[in-house]
Amino acid sequence: MRKIKELLKQMTLEEKVGLCSGLDFWNTKAIERLGIPSIMMTDGPHGLRKQAGEADHLGINKSIPSTCFPTAAGLACSWDKDLVKRTGAAIGEEAQAEGVSIVLGPGANIKRSPLCGRNFEYFSEDPYLSSKLAASYIKGVQSQGVGTSLKHFAVNNQEYKRMSINAIVDERTLREIYLASFEEAIKDGQPWSVMAAYNKVNGEFCSENKKLLTEVLKDEWGFEGLVVTDWGAVNELDDGIEAGLELEMPSSGGQGEKKIIEAVKSGKLSMETLDQAVERILKVVFRAVENKQTNATYSKNEHHSIAREVARESMVLLKNEEQILPIKTARSVAVIGAFAKSPRFQGGGSSHINPTMVDNIFEEMEKVAEPSTSLLFAEGYSLERDDVNEQLISEAVEVAKNAEVAVIFAGLPESYESEGFDRKHLSIPENHQVLIEEIAKVQGNIIVVLSNGAPIEMPWLNKVKAVLEGYLGGQAIGGAIADVLFGLANPSGKLAETFPRKLIHNPSYLNFPGDGETVEYREGVFVGYRHYDTRDVEPLFPFGYGLSYTSFEYSDIQVERKEIKDTESITVSVNVKNTGSMAGKEIVQLYVRDVESTIPRPEKELKGFEKVFLQPGEEKTVTFELGKRAFAYYNVNLKDWHVESGDFDILIGSSSREILQRETIYVQSTVKIEKILTRHSTFGELMEHPVGAEIMKSMQSQAGQSDDDHGLGAGMQEMILGTTLHNASVMSNGVFTEEMLQGILQAVNNPK
Amino acid sequence: MRKIKELLKQMTLEEKVGLCSGLDFWNTKAIERLGIPSIMMTDGPHGLRKQAGEADHLGINKSIPSTCFPTAAGLACSWDKDLVKRTGAAIGEEAQAEGVSIVLGPGANIKRSPLCGRNFEYFSEDPYLSSKLAASYIKGVQSQGVGTSLKHFAVNNQEYKRMSINAIVDERTLREIYLASFEEAIKDGQPWSVMAAYNKVNGEFCSENKKLLTEVLKDEWGFEGLVVTDWGAVNELDDGIEAGLELEMPSSGGQGEKKIIEAVKSGKLSMETLDQAVERILKVVFRAVENKQTNATYSKNEHHSIAREVARESMVLLKNEEQILPIKTARSVAVIGAFAKSPRFQGGGSSHINPTMVDNIFEEMEKVAEPSTSLLFAEGYSLERDDVNEQLISEAVEVAKNAEVAVIFAGLPESYESEGFDRKHLSIPENHQVLIEEIAKVQGNIIVVLSNGAPIEMPWLNKVKAVLEGYLGGQAIGGAIADVLFGLANPSGKLAETFPRKLIHNPSYLNFPGDGETVEYREGVFVGYRHYDTRDVEPLFPFGYGLSYTSFEYSDIQVERKEIKDTESITVSVNVKNTGSMAGKEIVQLYVRDVESTIPRPEKELKGFEKVFLQPGEEKTVTFELGKRAFAYYNVNLKDWHVESGDFDILIGSSSREILQRETIYVQSTVKIEKILTRHSTFGELMEHPVGAEIMKSMQSQAGQSDDDHGLGAGMQEMILGTTLHNASVMSNGVFTEEMLQGILQAVNNPK
Repeated sequence: MRKIKELLKQMTLEEKVGLCSGLDFWNTKAIERLGIPSIMMTDGPHGLRKQAGEADHLGINKSIPSTCFPTAAGLACSWDKDLVKRTGAAIGEEAQAEGVSIVLGPGANIKRSPLCGRNFEYFSEDPYLSSKLAASYIKGVQSQGVGTSLKHFAVNNQEYKRMSINAIVDERTLREIYLASFEEAIKDGQPWSVMAAYNKVNGEFCSENKKLLTEVLKDEWGFEGLVVTDWGAVNELDDGIEAGLELEMPSSGGQGEKKIIEAVKSGKLSMETLDQAVERILKVVFRAVENKQTNATYSKNEHHSIAREVARESMVLLKNEEQILPIKTARSVAVIGAFAKSPRFQGGGSSHINPTMVDNIFEEMEKVAEPSTSLLFAEGYSLERDDVNEQLISEAVEVAKNAEVAVIFAGLPESYESEGFDRKHLSIPENHQVLIEEIAKVQGNIIVVLSNGAPIEMPWLNKVKAVLEGYLGGQAIGGAIADVLFGLANPSGKLAETFPRKLIHNPSYLNFPGDGETVEYREGVFVGYRHYDTRDVEPLFPFGYGLSYTSFEYSDIQVERKEIKDTESITVSVNVKNTGSMAGKEIVQLYVRDVESTIPRPEKELKGFEKVFLQPGEEKTVTFELGKRAFAYYNVNLKDWHVESGDFDILIGSSSREILQRETIYVQSTVKIEKILTRHSTFGELMEHPVGAEIMKSMQSQAGQSDDDHGLGAGMQEMILGTTLHNASVMSNGVFTEEMLQGILQAVNNPK
Repeated sequence: MRKIKELLKQMTLEEKVGLCSGLDFWNTKAIERLGIPSIMMTDGPHGLRKQAGEADHLGINKSIPSTCFPTAAGLACSWDKDLVKRTGAAIGEEAQAEGVSIVLGPGANIKRSPLCGRNFEYFSEDPYLSSKLAASYIKGVQSQGVGTSLKHFAVNNQEYKRMSINAIVDERTLREIYLASFEEAIKDGQPWSVMAAYNKVNGEFCSENKKLLTEVLKDEWGFEGLVVTDWGAVNELDDGIEAGLELEMPSSGGQGEKKIIEAVKSGKLSMETLDQAVERILKVVFRAVENKQTNATYSKNEHHSIAREVARESMVLLKNEEQILPIKTARSVAVIGAFAKSPRFQGGGSSHINPTMVDNIFEEMEKVAEPSTSLLFAEGYSLERDDVNEQLISEAVEVAKNAEVAVIFAGLPESYESEGFDRKHLSIPENHQVLIEEIAKVQGNIIVVLSNGAPIEMPWLNKVKAVLEGYLGGQAIGGAIADVLFGLANPSGKLAETFPRKLIHNPSYLNFPGDGETVEYREGVFVGYRHYDTRDVEPLFPFGYGLSYTSFEYSDIQVERKEIKDTESITVSVNVKNTGSMAGKEIVQLYVRDVESTIPRPEKELKGFEKVFLQPGEEKTVTFELGKRAFAYYNVNLKDWHVESGDFDILIGSSSREILQRETIYVQSTVKIEKILTRHSTFGELMEHPVGAEIMKSMQSQAGQSDDDHGLGAGMQEMILGTTLHNASVMSNGVFTEEMLQGILQAVNNPK
């Protein structure tokens, strides 16, 4: 630190300003005379996209090979903090080997709509899960002395007009959903860097949004790293620096620097603010330097094995009728679909990497299957087109007809989902869909294996016996799928997002992606299962859902106490037993429900999860710790998290819709909310106030009010309670004077 | 007019101001020296609530008897403009007989939530239907030389905090739903008066909301009458007058007048504005005087007969399994429920009137039933309590067990719905519900007759064979129900609102009734069936739904042309035939659907309806005329209604969910919307512009762009199209200069 303060004193204005804008596409500027080196950042997050040789000016040249892990959408289905951390560590190792100082990731944006083209790079529709997993990823990468850049901060939940769209989000929703998804990742993960998103939030570009970058991120959450723009996400760099941005990437060819210099010279931007920015940059630069390993290497084969393990843990078994999976004794298996030989395993855009190797699923299946099982292949559809190829279909039907079971590989082709654009619907290509339906006519035992970065509609679901959701499983997807299909691995993933029956059921449906200028987040906090569960909309597959080859039983929920204060924590435990015959992992989920609330709250919210491994017959006790935030909502008047005194249900289940154990506790608020009455307060509100109730009583006895309804019906008493003091005064024809009204307000609001 | 201008010149400031505030609770001030009389207003809208003798200061003393017609919620189910007009005329007659100049009604507020306590006074969830029926009612009353006061203008859709709540509604929603419900009633009905609501709309009290009262109501819609406050809905009277209010009611004991005088003296309010207000008041006063009939009377018996006819036409047959209705040959009918002898027929609050007589339903049934049919009665529940009375239930079970059929009268007691408070749930009382369930255990033939002002949940629906929805049917409800139950009348009403399966399915559910300060209309235009149909939420009973004792067949839809301009009208016709054996009426509904739209639009919207009477075997052709508004949405940028060129489906059906005939036409917009590009416009938007497309082409050929994905995946091209000019400039490292960017914008936005 002393060194940095010293350096600052020696730096010219131009040198300082130079540090706030990139050298080129991937590197910061060095200042050789002061021994300040350049550091390199590269795209992530599920593998490194480091460009070979000299960086081109668009950052789109081919990149050097690196291991492609499952993208975040799949990774999240593992619900496994340790696994996510190990994935991060492997990527960190590769970064060290390649001399990369900061990996641009993870992405903690919320999956507001399943249409968002970049959902495959994000974890979840739930901020608690997303934030926990983002923190784990950050810790993993940073354990290798390589930094991360948590992105895209904030409310970057669509690709359509992402560079200028103005997201209108109310404060409570911002806090409870969109910022919460970053909050724990910052506080617990402490990333070296945060990336400011392209879009505007409530009228301000993220890169010059003081509330987001300074007030929330740094002042409230204690972020100590540097804020870098998404690539080219700068609007006016001097305004950005003022708002809490530190670094513009890539270089803007001197434009940005010129603006800062002018702003400093004109006094618009203080030297102190600039110094703070430079100090934050230098801290990260020197941290990178200190942690740099020379001659670091990694084993491509070992990392491929890790990728296989991660993919295996991330798959979700959505359906398994008649326990058709795992395939054990089948003599003949038809393997249908071009994806089986050319797997879809990653999404398009800046995260699109050049894998070190890629499994051929068919070949991996052959390696894993019993020697007595014969595997037959048919392409089924062309990778290049969406329309039906009758020839390929009839070949596939022929192959499927004569097999005992057909495994169909389907999903979304690469052209369907990418950074840069959103989907318009949730359909898979026509040729995939028709393939499934045609094969269903001749084959009763169909297993569909899906490759896709986000939910799809499944109109064919009742025609197939099993569905294995593989998401975008990375380069080792083939081995992982083979392991699961043939029972060498027991699937244990659970959905980190809701699969809707139809797109129109999604809460953002009518407000996504907005009109091109703005997008209104009218559904508020009711995102994902918070919507489906609260509004009783039946999903195709609920949040937290996933099957196993074994079965689990939950019992004996225990709460430490039945009543706590909101300043206290409480321990909750539950027993989980493997009641089947295969070892397996269960993801135990804890949700909290506010039984009665004065504000609309979700039916339930995830507040804890744990993945446990159990041998057949084995039982373990899973323990959770719940603090204030587990019961709180964000109160916009208090500008703080607040718990309303009352009962809260503790719900423990195997998905958001399968609650297996429950308890109720009482949480007592320690915060008193003072209600100030005004002339537009009602007599009902006056009655609720201790002083006001006394006044009402004496007014009523003076008025000699009777039970008679005066000809207005049975609602008379309620009508009086709904009347405002103001209205009563106006209507009283001078009897209830302004002085009397003010007297009441004085007595209530300023009691002695 | 000349006379009024003359009078104005003779009036003192105090006299002018005096006219702007009531004399007492119900009358305007007279100015005897100038021959300006006082006129009286009384509550409505489904009958007169004129207080006997001297008005008290609270306006709640008992009122003189008048005929109680079905409230608007039921009346609307007739979908019969003529019937509504005749109802209005009958009420106008009674007003003449009682010396009342203005009836305070009708209410054209939209049923945003089924919970609103005052829904029974409103027509519909659909603005087209609501506005048409309100216009008919206005024309009916005013045909008798009595004025109306269309209320509550505007966005008064809840009772909770109604006197101060701030309704936040976006402009498009305001125009398409909440104002549209008043628009046609104003333009076509020309009410003498409009009543400004208590609440705020987008931050301004309605009574001082210049946009609503002056810009929309008077300037745009051409309203010529006077605006009166809802009783005591004045905030600051001088601000109100400035905004377009004319009259404060009731008297505020001189407070309001003092404020106007001060405002005129200080120059805050111009004499011209005050004169305009007084002129509008005087016009109405003299219109009342000119139309006043001396010695007007009406026949109470005749009006009771009209009320019976109206009630009959307003009932909705919701279910009729095995054609259990009409009851024809039953030897014994169990009549169960206290409502059968003490009917629930009106709602509470200011509209609660003192009926001239009230039918006893049981007695009316006895009069109408075949002599061979014996009617047995059991009370079933107490009117005073909600909890189950075992004794009454077992008596009812006993009576029901031995009958051939049981008619159960159930619904909402008077204490459940009233002006002044909203419901909290959609349940009927426990004792009604248990009664139905217990009787269902012993009796398979159950007919439920409902009395309620708004939708209820019906968890017992599959246990009963028939449900007749009587709404709040007015004082002649007994005869009307008897007529329908025994087949003397064929039910022909259809729902003017959706009955949801559960409250939580309602679109406003999470944003109703707000936090006490504000209520956000986040569902936007997706109110009622616009929500249920667009989001695929299955209702209990859909909008426009109702059964008949006969059957109808639709055929031969005809559209005049297949393509029109948005400035032209088009005629649509369809044939409807009575294919059953009983004469009956069918309500033919026309909906329009924008096949493809750049903005989110409802799945369909009602744009025409017609009620036709058909003898068995008879066929009629029903004709509709559709103009621009049938296809338009409100474009907030144009500040006008706008039709997007494209295909529109014309859907004709017997309910919003039963579309029986359809045609598609093309509507060509005559309005060109110019799109101005900015530095934050994307290359995709540039491509869509004719000049921009040329520029893009030359840029691409210069860049020598290849098809290679450069390692970013298949979304590369889409990513480029999603890039903004600004971002491209920043990222270009000086290649794409600010001058070039400005040059493009210049060329596109200002083509030569």
